[in-house]
Amino acid sequence: MPDSMLEQVKAYLTNLQDQITEALEQADGSGQFTEDAWQRPGGGGGRSRVLRDGAVLEQGGVGFSHVYGEQMPASATAHRPELAGRNFNACGVSLVMHPRNPYVPTSHANVRFFIAEKADAEPVWWFGGGFDLTPFYANDEDIKHWHQVAYEALQPFGNDLYPAYKQWCDEYFYLKHRGETRGVGGLFFDDLNERGFDESFAIMRAVGDAYLAAYLPIISRRKDMPYGERERQFQLYRRGRYVEFNLVWDRGTLFGLQTGGRTESILMSMPPLVRWEYGYQPEPGSPEARLYEDYLRPRDWLAEL
Amino acid sequence: MPDSMLEQVKAYLTNLQDQITEALEQADGSGQFTEDAWQRPGGGGGRSRVLRDGAVLEQGGVGFSHVYGEQMPASATAHRPELAGRNFNACGVSLVMHPRNPYVPTSHANVRFFIAEKADAEPVWWFGGGFDLTPFYANDEDIKHWHQVAYEALQPFGNDLYPAYKQWCDEYFYLKHRGETRGVGGLFFDDLNERGFDESFAIMRAVGDAYLAAYLPIISRRKDMPYGERERQFQLYRRGRYVEFNLVWDRGTLFGLQTGGRTESILMSMPPLVRWEYGYQPEPGSPEARLYEDYLRPRDWLAEL
Repeated sequence: MPDSMLEQVKAYLTNLQDQITEALEQADGSGQFTEDAWQRPGGGGGRSRVLRDGAVLEQGGVGFSHVYGEQMPASATAHRPELAGRNFNACGVSLVMHPRNPYVPTSHANVRFFIAEKADAEPVWWFGGGFDLTPFYANDEDIKHWHQVAYEALQPFGNDLYPAYKQWCDEYFYLKHRGETRGVGGLFFDDLNERGFDESFAIMRAVGDAYLAAYLPIISRRKDMPYGERERQFQLYRRGRYVEFNLVWDRGTLFGLQTGGRTESILMSMPPLVRWEYGYQPEPGSPEARLYEDYLRPRDWLAEL
Repeated sequence: MPDSMLEQVKAYLTNLQDQITEALEQADGSGQFTEDAWQRPGGGGGRSRVLRDGAVLEQGGVGFSHVYGEQMPASATAHRPELAGRNFNACGVSLVMHPRNPYVPTSHANVRFFIAEKADAEPVWWFGGGFDLTPFYANDEDIKHWHQVAYEALQPFGNDLYPAYKQWCDEYFYLKHRGETRGVGGLFFDDLNERGFDESFAIMRAVGDAYLAAYLPIISRRKDMPYGERERQFQLYRRGRYVEFNLVWDRGTLFGLQTGGRTESILMSMPPLVRWEYGYQPEPGSPEARLYEDYLRPRDWLAEL
């Protein structure tokens, strides 16, 4: 049974990676993804696809991986540390888009599936995933659209999922040392198995399938907006928060780096160019100040916007 | 007794910060340090000094801090977790210099002093510190000079200190996820108290006092070397390793960020501009390849160069 579950999920994930890279190439209009296939010495491997120096995307990475091994790390599951040490299979698709135009937000999505097994016990499996949006110059129309797509993707599974996963996203993508959310959120879930395999898998697919519908219209609307050095510098500065989140707080990144994952694939999420500035404060009343004041905190976007 | 120890160390540290910022301003010839004094809500505070857009230094930060509180974190001492939870005083000077010219290496230094106390027990105190060099285009003469100054600073305290602290530095400033040392090392020590207060303090002073003698001649020799876009791009790329080390592996940085330290002062170490590039490999036989092949691993520089 775990084998057929795994094969179904892998078939979906590799297809999702294909769909997303094709659609983003089309949206970019100029850049193309190049692929590195890699193998993990401990078991498994993946295919990492990166687009660089596109017309729209300064850099985008979409990775598929399926890794397995004999000792599942405790960090693989937030709520079931008792599964650490089991045989495991983990597969997923993970992506980050760093657009060139500061009016196009950065976006991230991930969907994943784990199976943990040991002799003389039922296999344990779960799904996780989500997507979240990180604007530099936030636009209410974009944010409402992003959350509307998230809401509609989960509506078939009941009214409680969107609010729960939206809140989980706000809590997970939080830079405690800055007192800021990473961006305007979206969805995040983990440890999903209580609805059985078929429905849990369907929820993961709904999230994976919704990403392009959530992001592509925002690209279209913003990619040709004129901008200057001021907006570019703010974008580079705010990208520093992305680096800080991923390297200081993100469980997956830290786990990967500290336990011998493929560094280049893990750090495919790093922005191509980043700036830090000691003591930066946005000018009061500026569009930059508005990001901090109105957007980098949990809000009920669908009700308020 | 702890009070007078603390006052002696603080007097040294504030003076060291003054000396270093004055000497570096002079070496820069154009940039000036500006100071932020800050207070820590839980107890204590500091003065952070930053020089930006200098002729030599693209950015440099030199921080002094003295913080105290009622619950020492376990991460404050590597080898004495049993002291966690005591009242503590911690003071230190920490600095990172990010030069503009890629032929001038990045440098870092830190000296620190801790006292942990509880009722009905002897106070426990210790010193820590060190300095390390991170070249982009490594130069044997510079590295030999750097380690020679380190060696001579510790010679008055016996033959065993330099090799021990040099090895500790190689081990501490190691990017496990890259299989690279951060640079060509220097000195690192922690938990020093077994020689008594006077000699331990003298060792910390020897290290703190040696930093300028180690770094200034390297600045002088390299600051006017011509360079182009290729060297600049490699410098920006390699600065990414600095970010990765500080945010993923450095105990002090992580502890500070995760427990409510002053974020801007902790991240004063971040480079002003940084680049990541997926799958970068230096061209075989190039000066960039030479850095990886010959320098980013532990070597007995004084014997080999």
